[in-house]
Amino acid sequence: MGRAARDAATVLRTASADQRSQAIQAMARHVRARANEILAANAEDVAGATAMVDRLMLNDERLEAIAIALEQVAALPDPVGQVMARWLRPNGLDISRVRTPIGVIGMIYESRPNVTADAAAICIRSGNAIILRSGSEALRSALAIHGALAEGLKEAGLPEAAVQIVPTADRAAVGMMLEGLGGAIDLIIPRGGRALVERVSQEARVPVLGHLEGVCHTYVHASAEPDMAAEVVRNAKLRRTSVCGSTETLLIDRSVAPSLLPQIAEVLEGCELRGDKESQAIVPMAAASEADWHAEYLAPILAVKAVNGIDEAIAHIARYGTGHTEAIVAEDEQAAEHFLDRVDSAIVIWNASTQFADGGEFGFGAEIGIATGRLHVRGPVGPEQLTTFKYQVRGSGQIRP
Amino acid sequence: MGRAARDAATVLRTASADQRSQAIQAMARHVRARANEILAANAEDVAGATAMVDRLMLNDERLEAIAIALEQVAALPDPVGQVMARWLRPNGLDISRVRTPIGVIGMIYESRPNVTADAAAICIRSGNAIILRSGSEALRSALAIHGALAEGLKEAGLPEAAVQIVPTADRAAVGMMLEGLGGAIDLIIPRGGRALVERVSQEARVPVLGHLEGVCHTYVHASAEPDMAAEVVRNAKLRRTSVCGSTETLLIDRSVAPSLLPQIAEVLEGCELRGDKESQAIVPMAAASEADWHAEYLAPILAVKAVNGIDEAIAHIARYGTGHTEAIVAEDEQAAEHFLDRVDSAIVIWNASTQFADGGEFGFGAEIGIATGRLHVRGPVGPEQLTTFKYQVRGSGQIRP
Repeated sequence: MGRAARDAATVLRTASADQRSQAIQAMARHVRARANEILAANAEDVAGATAMVDRLMLNDERLEAIAIALEQVAALPDPVGQVMARWLRPNGLDISRVRTPIGVIGMIYESRPNVTADAAAICIRSGNAIILRSGSEALRSALAIHGALAEGLKEAGLPEAAVQIVPTADRAAVGMMLEGLGGAIDLIIPRGGRALVERVSQEARVPVLGHLEGVCHTYVHASAEPDMAAEVVRNAKLRRTSVCGSTETLLIDRSVAPSLLPQIAEVLEGCELRGDKESQAIVPMAAASEADWHAEYLAPILAVKAVNGIDEAIAHIARYGTGHTEAIVAEDEQAAEHFLDRVDSAIVIWNASTQFADGGEFGFGAEIGIATGRLHVRGPVGPEQLTTFKYQVRGSGQIRP
Repeated sequence: MGRAARDAATVLRTASADQRSQAIQAMARHVRARANEILAANAEDVAGATAMVDRLMLNDERLEAIAIALEQVAALPDPVGQVMARWLRPNGLDISRVRTPIGVIGMIYESRPNVTADAAAICIRSGNAIILRSGSEALRSALAIHGALAEGLKEAGLPEAAVQIVPTADRAAVGMMLEGLGGAIDLIIPRGGRALVERVSQEARVPVLGHLEGVCHTYVHASAEPDMAAEVVRNAKLRRTSVCGSTETLLIDRSVAPSLLPQIAEVLEGCELRGDKESQAIVPMAAASEADWHAEYLAPILAVKAVNGIDEAIAHIARYGTGHTEAIVAEDEQAAEHFLDRVDSAIVIWNASTQFADGGEFGFGAEIGIATGRLHVRGPVGPEQLTTFKYQVRGSGQIRP
């Protein structure tokens, strides 16, 4: 698989943008054409599942959403060959920094079947070959979807090995991928729970684009407009509780907590609150333990803490945050800019919901996760983020003195 | 050291560009002020050295060059806080991608004492803390230089722990750095021979910005202007043979080899040639073995191979190159663009010497190496390359539908 992927990557690197678009469009057609087969495979997966059945289950509507997502990626601007910068040196050398594919991506993921199609499409859009390793719960679905993707590649004249999938749920395959398949994998992208991410960071011998948990914070500053604060917190927590950009901890300035916390609590209907002593004294709620400040609930639960001003909020985020997304609600521009400057997360937001942490919302068209590490990129990972670059230097016989 | 570096990184991340410039200028002053002490330490290193004495040795002139290099880095534009891109979403969200420091860099290097000062200055310029680990041959020199750097930091009011050095030559320290010092190191930069680079790639548990060998190629296309080809090859090989951007293999089109190879051989005075059978039949030279195509000589030796056109040249480079720097000499623009497009090295050059592979020559002002991996950056590593970014999102109360 490693050798085949490397060979496919060489073809992809120089395939035209149009040919890669056509391949992704053909993938969408074949996903639709094989709907019965894919849904039957998915039904088997669902029958065998013990948990997270909703994440796993496909139906006509969800399968159509997968096909539409493929078409959207096919229509995205192609990053390969983009000139990121170009400058002329005093000696006449003309230097360009040009985007190129990374090469071969290894994607290790758990139970969402749509990841199979999304990740493949984003890799083809960015000129990369991909080796997919689905979790066992979704393996039949992933194999059926992969069959459709391979047909699409074939139809567009691209090597089928551009998108490969590990055909078994054998955990040893993950180990081999983390070793890099003998130099064939350039980058591993894990998407899954804490156990997977920890295994990857322990064992990987190749670079990893990590997608840690999102312990995201919304901080309500003393200057916040109360109605905006309530609306933003509600959306950040409750719009969808299962996404990584949902807020897990509310920090609120001590000075405004007595008036504002009750208003916020009122709009958080159906949400369990767990607070520090001060918050508990204002609104009846359960006591938060140390574990709550670290928790990625992905559920209608919110940890609440009163803080003594912006620097205590920033310090709390530095200690408990995972570098994903944090927001401040404030009318005081100076305070907001201080927060945007000092908080060292992939995404920092002023006066908007943390649920905007999403490649689509950023205008990237598609994403396969939010990178929470510091290298190679941070934040939403779309096609552009799966590129690297090279320098092209054009001269007229220059020699170096 | 890890904790101190992490704390220092937090201070550096928000220190002003001016304060960091002043620290680097003060480092230069203290390097000059401590010249006697540094040269005495270096004399001890030189007395104990068994090889590469020239690379190790300092004198007044070389020490002044170190101080001047520091001043140049102090004068470079500051990358921290630069807005790399800014766009407005249809919902009114204003998104910026802003450069931020990476955090803590671990630098593991061998015998050049100037790396101690260069790496420290580039890290301070880019807002990063650094932990230096010098090779044992240069350790006394490195410690003496580090003493001057620490004085400069103190004078500018920055934490001395922003630049730390491992005080012993114990190899276990390298292992601890490669483990990441308990999460304190964000990026390892190795600079040294093959043994070091291999150890790093085997053992590192944190991201590595690798500086592999430079097995660089110059390819003379059939359309090359003969005098330009000879001059460019001579410079690429012989200007300085010990730099990583020096050409190690000459590829020449079969059709022009009979006329052009003798002209090139003539200007390569004092250079040993090792050729394939075809080259040997044109110019008397030793036979090249398989090992020669892999060799980074860093010496006046050149491997020579006649190729059957551009695609054979590209295939040879893909097989034997290290992804560093390759050049084509050609008048045929289509051929040149084909080469610039297809060769997948960090730097690809048309009609100029491979010895331009250098951060200074690219206009970066300074570098601490040429990255030959594919992530996080490729090519010359200057201050800008030692940054990452975050997204700042400014809203007016937006919630996600």
